[in-house]
Amino acid sequence: MPHIDLPDAPGIRALFQFRGETAKPLVELAEVLLRAPSSLSRGERELIAAYVSSRNECRYCTGSHSAYAAAQLPDGAALVTSVKTDLESADVSPKLRALLTIAGQVQTSGRAVTSDAIASAKAAGATDIELHDTVLIAAAFCMYNRYVDGLATVPLADDTGYAAMAPRILEHGYTGIALGTTRP
Amino acid sequence: MPHIDLPDAPGIRALFQFRGETAKPLVELAEVLLRAPSSLSRGERELIAAYVSSRNECRYCTGSHSAYAAAQLPDGAALVTSVKTDLESADVSPKLRALLTIAGQVQTSGRAVTSDAIASAKAAGATDIELHDTVLIAAAFCMYNRYVDGLATVPLADDTGYAAMAPRILEHGYTGIALGTTRP
Repeated sequence: MPHIDLPDAPGIRALFQFRGETAKPLVELAEVLLRAPSSLSRGERELIAAYVSSRNECRYCTGSHSAYAAAQLPDGAALVTSVKTDLESADVSPKLRALLTIAGQVQTSGRAVTSDAIASAKAAGATDIELHDTVLIAAAFCMYNRYVDGLATVPLADDTGYAAMAPRILEHGYTGIALGTTRP
Repeated sequence: MPHIDLPDAPGIRALFQFRGETAKPLVELAEVLLRAPSSLSRGERELIAAYVSSRNECRYCTGSHSAYAAAQLPDGAALVTSVKTDLESADVSPKLRALLTIAGQVQTSGRAVTSDAIASAKAAGATDIELHDTVLIAAAFCMYNRYVDGLATVPLADDTGYAAMAPRILEHGYTGIALGTTRP
């Protein structure tokens, strides 16, 4: 049960309905980080979000962003599961593995990011903007995860529900769905 | 030295200059959380930001938000220092102490927030919106801190520099300074 009296909606959706003033910048941040034009694909960025959420043990964010990543990556749910379970053996490019490694360090602490991890990512072809966005996506999910769980919002019962949310996010984006510019 | 090639500016300012697309929602979130009308004073909200930043050992965010809190609280810098050093003995109201306790739990993890801490805050008079905003301020600074340190931005040399930044933030706000609606 949530710690405060929230609208009857799962996860962060209840919080967006509770407080529209904060929902706006939170949703716009997710839109620019996860969906705006980038040399990292939408699937790759959702994978970073799912990986960090998994490390923070946030059920709602892990379930939803794993579903959004799976829907936008060639290898789908199997790849997402393998990244969350054992990053070292997952079938991702050297660059994406290096970026996910940095995201994992950010999940621990900003101060945990090592120069070696940055150098490895650059050697694998990561650009400054990709490094910037990876760190900020990881940092942002350390916020979203704490927001969702710190107020004890209610996750969905199983992964089927998250998968069902994916097509609308893929079509309309976060601003379209959460800020009501498109009817859900 | 920063991990990526950034403009020559301290802390998060370099990141805002590097990537305007993400600066906008990040600055707007800080403005609504820390400065918009609220039953928590601006000084109290900056104190929550400073407390969380201190626990995350983020020099730039701790220095700057401690200065902004000190400039807007009756007991100034001494109170801010006492909260960061020993919350239990600090001279704050029971409600603010309870909210800071919750902010400290959020810094650990969203899952670390206890029903007991929520009940104590409610018993001390905290409203649902105050609880919501406390959790989100704490969560947001777990993001800002990781962003600033994860890219190894450069803090200021000493507290004098942070104190010098306070009057402009108090007058023009985060959107005014960081998004250039007011010239610095």
